[in-house]
Amino acid sequence: MKALVYHGPGKKAWEERPRSTLRAATDAVVRTAKTTICGTDLHILKGDVPTVAEGRILGHEGVGVIEEIGAGVTDFRAGDRVLISCISADGKCDYCKRGMYSHCRGGGWVLGNTIDGTQAEYVRIPFADTSLHRVPAGVDDEALVMLSDVFPTGFECGVLDGQVQPGETVAIVGAGPIGLAVLLTARLYSPAELIVIDMDDNRLGVARTLGATRSIHSGREDAATRVLELTGGQGVDVAIEAVGIPGTFDICQAVVAPGGHIANVGVHGKSVELHLERLWSQNITLTTRLVDTTTTPMLLKMLAAGKLDPGRLITHRFRLDDILHAYDTFGNAASQKALKVILKND
Amino acid sequence: MKALVYHGPGKKAWEERPRSTLRAATDAVVRTAKTTICGTDLHILKGDVPTVAEGRILGHEGVGVIEEIGAGVTDFRAGDRVLISCISADGKCDYCKRGMYSHCRGGGWVLGNTIDGTQAEYVRIPFADTSLHRVPAGVDDEALVMLSDVFPTGFECGVLDGQVQPGETVAIVGAGPIGLAVLLTARLYSPAELIVIDMDDNRLGVARTLGATRSIHSGREDAATRVLELTGGQGVDVAIEAVGIPGTFDICQAVVAPGGHIANVGVHGKSVELHLERLWSQNITLTTRLVDTTTTPMLLKMLAAGKLDPGRLITHRFRLDDILHAYDTFGNAASQKALKVILKND
Amino acid sequence: MKALVYHGPGKKAWEERPRSTLRAATDAVVRTAKTTICGTDLHILKGDVPTVAEGRILGHEGVGVIEEIGAGVTDFRAGDRVLISCISADGKCDYCKRGMYSHCRGGGWVLGNTIDGTQAEYVRIPFADTSLHRVPAGVDDEALVMLSDVFPTGFECGVLDGQVQPGETVAIVGAGPIGLAVLLTARLYSPAELIVIDMDDNRLGVARTLGATRSIHSGREDAATRVLELTGGQGVDVAIEAVGIPGTFDICQAVVAPGGHIANVGVHGKSVELHLERLWSQNITLTTRLVDTTTTPMLLKMLAAGKLDPGRLITHRFRLDDILHAYDTFGNAASQKALKVILKND
Amino acid sequence: MKALVYHGPGKKAWEERPRSTLRAATDAVVRTAKTTICGTDLHILKGDVPTVAEGRILGHEGVGVIEEIGAGVTDFRAGDRVLISCISADGKCDYCKRGMYSHCRGGGWVLGNTIDGTQAEYVRIPFADTSLHRVPAGVDDEALVMLSDVFPTGFECGVLDGQVQPGETVAIVGAGPIGLAVLLTARLYSPAELIVIDMDDNRLGVARTLGATRSIHSGREDAATRVLELTGGQGVDVAIEAVGIPGTFDICQAVVAPGGHIANVGVHGKSVELHLERLWSQNITLTTRLVDTTTTPMLLKMLAAGKLDPGRLITHRFRLDDILHAYDTFGNAASQKALKVILKND
Repeated sequence: MKALVYHGPGKKAWEERPRSTLRAATDAVVRTAKTTICGTDLHILKGDVPTVAEGRILGHEGVGVIEEIGAGVTDFRAGDRVLISCISADGKCDYCKRGMYSHCRGGGWVLGNTIDGTQAEYVRIPFADTSLHRVPAGVDDEALVMLSDVFPTGFECGVLDGQVQPGETVAIVGAGPIGLAVLLTARLYSPAELIVIDMDDNRLGVARTLGATRSIHSGREDAATRVLELTGGQGVDVAIEAVGIPGTFDICQAVVAPGGHIANVGVHGKSVELHLERLWSQNITLTTRLVDTTTTPMLLKMLAAGKLDPGRLITHRFRLDDILHAYDTFGNAASQKALKVILKND
Repeated sequence: MKALVYHGPGKKAWEERPRSTLRAATDAVVRTAKTTICGTDLHILKGDVPTVAEGRILGHEGVGVIEEIGAGVTDFRAGDRVLISCISADGKCDYCKRGMYSHCRGGGWVLGNTIDGTQAEYVRIPFADTSLHRVPAGVDDEALVMLSDVFPTGFECGVLDGQVQPGETVAIVGAGPIGLAVLLTARLYSPAELIVIDMDDNRLGVARTLGATRSIHSGREDAATRVLELTGGQGVDVAIEAVGIPGTFDICQAVVAPGGHIANVGVHGKSVELHLERLWSQNITLTTRLVDTTTTPMLLKMLAAGKLDPGRLITHRFRLDDILHAYDTFGNAASQKALKVILKND
Repeated sequence: MKALVYHGPGKKAWEERPRSTLRAATDAVVRTAKTTICGTDLHILKGDVPTVAEGRILGHEGVGVIEEIGAGVTDFRAGDRVLISCISADGKCDYCKRGMYSHCRGGGWVLGNTIDGTQAEYVRIPFADTSLHRVPAGVDDEALVMLSDVFPTGFECGVLDGQVQPGETVAIVGAGPIGLAVLLTARLYSPAELIVIDMDDNRLGVARTLGATRSIHSGREDAATRVLELTGGQGVDVAIEAVGIPGTFDICQAVVAPGGHIANVGVHGKSVELHLERLWSQNITLTTRLVDTTTTPMLLKMLAAGKLDPGRLITHRFRLDDILHAYDTFGNAASQKALKVILKND
Repeated sequence: MKALVYHGPGKKAWEERPRSTLRAATDAVVRTAKTTICGTDLHILKGDVPTVAEGRILGHEGVGVIEEIGAGVTDFRAGDRVLISCISADGKCDYCKRGMYSHCRGGGWVLGNTIDGTQAEYVRIPFADTSLHRVPAGVDDEALVMLSDVFPTGFECGVLDGQVQPGETVAIVGAGPIGLAVLLTARLYSPAELIVIDMDDNRLGVARTLGATRSIHSGREDAATRVLELTGGQGVDVAIEAVGIPGTFDICQAVVAPGGHIANVGVHGKSVELHLERLWSQNITLTTRLVDTTTTPMLLKMLAAGKLDPGRLITHRFRLDDILHAYDTFGNAASQKALKVILKND
């Protein structure tokens, strides 16, 4: 089969690899129908993710059709159309029993990280019964791919951890795919104000289209100052960090109101300065989270009910064997006005 | 009346001042029966709390008897024995309606800060109906003083925000009065392990007496390493910071397990380095809080039921007019083996 | 002033009464601008509410302008435009401190019940600071009247107590004003399905217009059977009772899924049969509640943000001195296709 | 092997049966070391549980040693000492993912109900990885048996669903083994008052020994009246029903304070009358639950930490092959002063 293989920092190739096969009784092999590229894949290619070895097939998102199942798989059969979760969960360990699949003792984020991933014609999925989702009839494949990672991440790490409630004022720092998924899923809780902050006019425009009530270009004005102005000096109930750098985290610290929540979604490469000398008395809750994908069934239900439209984040489509071109486009997101790219293998 | 007055950094005096009088219809004047000194008072005396003006009477804790009430006070009468809350709450503003009295628009922490406090023979209490508590019969005065600030602070900022649950493993960093109040109130939720960390052997000994299952001297061994050893490498469910400096906050960051909670109780004078480069994926919740004293009625009920013994933190007793001596003792807590000192005016 | 006075079962009159005056320092007198009639007023007129004495002015909803305030009122002034809460809260008692204003020791539901109410040109409001709400600029008066009782009741007793969550299936039994307020506020949490059950085609039509995804006429088909069919035999996550009779409560019991919630909103005059012989093992939560109006500030914020349109429940408008005619219309709601009627005094 | 077999209403026998064998890859066969008899077993013998067919081996509690495992069992090996959960959970279905193992699509309460149970020398356990618990070293076998059903049931259905909090007043109606397990686990949350109601002086005496602060003999005085007296007319924060008949449920309805919780633990054979004509406005939460056993790991941790002593409920011990005698004793609990009986097979 053909696959996108990581060969060390800065190096990748679309090359022939042995077809994925079952290794454990709880495995399934899935023929990839659609997949996508994540910002994390770009981090890997920069050499920022030391757990990824050379020779690894990248990718942790996708939909496909089950090719074969291990003897221990009971809930799926060959031929089933499935959504692949970016998180593999054994369903048995203490973390899985708490619903914290992200820290599953036997799984977690392994696809395209410590085992081969979905940017290939076939992919082996461990713990298939608890790591795949049956796809409701009539649901669009491309929209589904957004539910492998982007939407559960935005919803769980941003909206749920941030405890967004009706009537609240929410600031989202970062309008990339994850920030926009936060925006779309925050609306499920009907905040009164949704302020989106970014440095890219195109993305801010998309954010307004998707329901932002205010947008702030943090390159042209001081974002924190502007948020405080817009909120009469009070600050926001929830500040959601969807970038992963100290500067954007600082905006969150500066704008959160007493009693408010900071939900970190971004992947950080460095420590940040936490202003406890001011925040110690501000009754703040700050959360971090690797997505657990526990809300994927709910998101599938909303998708099937026509109440969520994740396809709105898709800007480009490629054939899977044109993935190098897709990486170029996604890697130059600003100039290409790219959000999510779809790779098709059917 | 006599009062302990702040005269700028490093300067205080026990001197004659005009007797406290009513200023608003919702005020009460209380004759102080017992009061105490808080670590915050020492911070004020160092000049660390800029909101405190020269000439201010210090103190925000105490029990006493109501001397007179304003026309708008309906729930108390002259002669009532009352507990003074360290937080004054108007009971009307948006923050009070949310139970966040700490950020009351008209009150909050004002006693011994922006208005005269309790280290005096009389004290004016604003919003008396919502800032005083009637004292249950048969309850010891000295124990009560611990409920003005120390116990609600330990319980709300440490135990409740840390979400201590039965069977959990809890680390408390700091065994001063607040850390020990965290310890005693954490036991209300029956954690399986209570690990206390400090650099003072006497305080660690007290902690063991009060229910710590483990104690660690962080001056003699690396506390974080030891906690990880004791927990089989897993870390703790809840880490509670009860000191207020970067080093102790670091211990909390280092020992919290994935999915765990860091509850900050300490008053910080500087920012800290938050290791988001590691914690971003650890599903951590970090909280800060100025005490709201919403749990004072519950703590009073537990005290009346004989199920809480806050008096165990009291090590020294003085007459109120001997307060300068009390400050000396409390200011040299380690050598004096002092925890809380009681000042009596009856 | 003129007022609608209850003169015992079946008897009411629009008659001259002394103008409302201040009685306590915390009172305000409000000149009524708009008021309405509640289903509860009809119950009172039937003699079903024994706490209401003959001679009582009815009504517990309205907006108006403050005419005068007592010496203890600090947050409002004469001339302020205000929303009157159906619940009066002293803001001081143990229940108020818990946010359970409905059971306020000095207040609760008193207006138009144990003290004179809002169906008059003037009304005395006790505990004005904690029982009135300042009205945001630019908000429609008629919509506001819906926030005195109907919307907080539907939202708190139905949606919050029922714990409606995104993606869930919700059944609302009863499409009167309260049931429709449940419907509109349930949408704030984005359920996937909202099934409305009633016996009135007009009301079911309104429900569909307001966002019901399914409607069931319980006079023409067995509602429980139909709900189970629509949910593949599984039942609903949340069943909300908004009528107040055994038959509608039975539907809720029959359709709630294991792990689901029954939220009672209806005012019941008789006991019901609870099928514990089946439900004991079904992991059900059943709630009852008299509205606390703690969510009124949030609802006001949503109204001001244009994200809630309570005015859609208003079907008829009358001059206040035409209130007897309004009672006729509201009392024959089915034939008149009446939901909420507005009475204007400005 | 020998087993206790149900032969229809009123009939049971200790007889030879084929030894338990593996049927599915996820099964384990356990050699029973200790088991017990549950009140539910007596219900089955009366013919009250129609799902139990003639020929069924009874029993759903026990500890033992794994004899053999299926090919799909990964977390246990032959020779492991294990606690058997009364609930079998496949760990994969929608209910298991929500932590509602009681309603597992493939399991739930099946042992000694729809499949053969633990009152035998060997027992087959389906979904072994998610239905057995490894036993901590040094923990007493007899105490462990209490964690198969009695303690998780009391804790989850009574204490957690009742939301017992520090300082609260709790009434427990019924002082049988389940009621006493409620009592012991309620203490993990430090209520101020624990009132136990029963008609058996011996059991009330045991309750006082185990921490009840008050006991009421409901045969000698009106229990509801007495509870209201003891609480100054206010009623209790939490009322826990641990019997399963209308009369005891009525006590709970009568004594719960506004804003309080009724947690039903008892297995009911008939409907009850719910007084919504009074309770509709009382802000009550009523819960029902079949135990999920999600808290068993926590209870094991508390047992290992020496902070829970479930063995105090054990009054009698028998050899397993003397089980008919044990049934006689347990079936005449009052005269025998029996609470839990232990059956030993090692």
